[in-house]
Amino acid sequence: MGGDHGPSVVVPAVFEFLQHDRDCAAILVGRAEELQPFLVMADAALAGRLAVQHASEVVDMHDPVATALRLKKDSSMRVMANLVKEGRADGAVSAGNTGALMAVSRFVLKTLPGIDRPAIATTLPTLRGHTYVLDLGANVDCAPEHLLQFGIMGAMLASALEHDARPSVGLLNIGEEDIKGNEVVKRAGELLKDSGLNFIGNVEGDDIYKGTADVVVCDGFVGNVALKTSEGLARMISTFLREEFARNPLTKLAGLFALPVLKAFKARVDPRRYNGASLLGLKGVVVKSHGSADVFAYRHALEQAAEAARQNLPEKIAARMATVPAVQSEPTLCD
Amino acid sequence: MGGDHGPSVVVPAVFEFLQHDRDCAAILVGRAEELQPFLVMADAALAGRLAVQHASEVVDMHDPVATALRLKKDSSMRVMANLVKEGRADGAVSAGNTGALMAVSRFVLKTLPGIDRPAIATTLPTLRGHTYVLDLGANVDCAPEHLLQFGIMGAMLASALEHDARPSVGLLNIGEEDIKGNEVVKRAGELLKDSGLNFIGNVEGDDIYKGTADVVVCDGFVGNVALKTSEGLARMISTFLREEFARNPLTKLAGLFALPVLKAFKARVDPRRYNGASLLGLKGVVVKSHGSADVFAYRHALEQAAEAARQNLPEKIAARMATVPAVQSEPTLCD
Repeated sequence: MGGDHGPSVVVPAVFEFLQHDRDCAAILVGRAEELQPFLVMADAALAGRLAVQHASEVVDMHDPVATALRLKKDSSMRVMANLVKEGRADGAVSAGNTGALMAVSRFVLKTLPGIDRPAIATTLPTLRGHTYVLDLGANVDCAPEHLLQFGIMGAMLASALEHDARPSVGLLNIGEEDIKGNEVVKRAGELLKDSGLNFIGNVEGDDIYKGTADVVVCDGFVGNVALKTSEGLARMISTFLREEFARNPLTKLAGLFALPVLKAFKARVDPRRYNGASLLGLKGVVVKSHGSADVFAYRHALEQAAEAARQNLPEKIAARMATVPAVQSEPTLCD
Repeated sequence: MGGDHGPSVVVPAVFEFLQHDRDCAAILVGRAEELQPFLVMADAALAGRLAVQHASEVVDMHDPVATALRLKKDSSMRVMANLVKEGRADGAVSAGNTGALMAVSRFVLKTLPGIDRPAIATTLPTLRGHTYVLDLGANVDCAPEHLLQFGIMGAMLASALEHDARPSVGLLNIGEEDIKGNEVVKRAGELLKDSGLNFIGNVEGDDIYKGTADVVVCDGFVGNVALKTSEGLARMISTFLREEFARNPLTKLAGLFALPVLKAFKARVDPRRYNGASLLGLKGVVVKSHGSADVFAYRHALEQAAEAARQNLPEKIAARMATVPAVQSEPTLCD
């Protein structure tokens, strides 16, 4: 059981989740001697829906992917993926090492037919609500076909979680015109146009937060840069705001008056409400929680995994992929 | 004379600039009949340092690059570039169409020896001050050698404008480790390491606003997405803040108390203070002002062009390029 806080966050989050969602049961995966004491804290209403699955090893945040994959065969991550594979769990959530989680999940669960590479999708707040963005770092050198697959997986994710039959899909580019962008993106635009998705064409970086599209597709390099840049800017803005309100007794007083407003503002962009990145394209539901997630945030990741499982997201992605005309997956310039 | 506001912004900005910088003179390029009336408004102190150069055509914001280049040979943009080429101007500023400005500048001025492609660099605020980021859209499919050239040009720009002999240079990537990123970026990291620059290695998206490096290097696609994403996020945050303060009479009152603080905050991230993107790698100084720039912002772009010219930036880039061991510029996977 990973993440920065381990069971002290995960277990209370699971309790809250089970209290709220009475159709679900949970299996806590990790060292039994660490997890058993928590079980006694569960009230009677949860007792029948809670189990512990022992796993003797832990994948460290700094473990290379190869270590996680080859040397730690009894890691909580691996045992968790096996539970999904064996059908004993309908979905999995982990706050551990992202690279290892992707590698282990892919190795154990395998990819869906038609999917070359799994992708990581996250949710970001927008002026209109929120938007799903993928890929976020799993795939750095992408061919046009991969971007098409991301588009399909993202649309199915948005469809499952938002109950929207035809979410709009935009392709992240550096201009709205078809002729803009690099060769990979131009070709991906053509494939998306012919995909039967509700493809609205190219979108630009600022469209992410405008909420122009329900799903924004990009390669993992660009997606990672967009996400990290956003995190950096948000942190700078909040630091500057704090500094200005702390400048002198008068500004501190103003801060006191403005506190409820600033809190309401903060709640609207609270990243905890968007915790839970979906690993898409696998034969099973796997959601990655932020390592630093608290109980509120972790519970959100659990709810997301439960809903994806309830909606049979992997099956829906596979079914949708089967309808896409086979694209000659020849190696492209950038593959 | 382009931009959204034309002479009504540019001319007052030039007046302010000349009043402040008594070593400089300015040539206003555009339709003489439109510009002459403004000249009579100049006070005596400026009269000797102000001239008008007639240009009969205007490059429209929607003109394709080919139109600007081939059909509008007497555009203000073209005439302006010619003034720089002929040595009658030491630098140029335009608020016109970016693509056309780059194409016309490149056609008229040519690139410096060793520079394959010019780049566009902008300044962004950071927790520590500000950072130069390039490229921002001129080059979407980059080879490692191009990223090396961007690093050198960016370092020379930061050096000229900040009077810092060895600005630090970071390579935008999706992890700090050397093994991260796509093939082009990995190879670019090796070239930058051997370049003699103060190269600090890979930086991530959030490092831009942390101010980890004085110069951040990336290809034009990634740079454009990072910049536009930032613009979108900043706009969303300011909209949300405004909405929360406007929610009811009580929050409006809080907003009134907080107004001076919010103004001080806004001034710190005011994009007008960062107006002026440098077109680097040309045999001459060309600065692009934002189309919507006001007088304050446009003056900043003028000051930046003047300082770059004073510091002989193009000559310094050329001299630095001459010291770089020749890289076999073979076509790479992504070129």
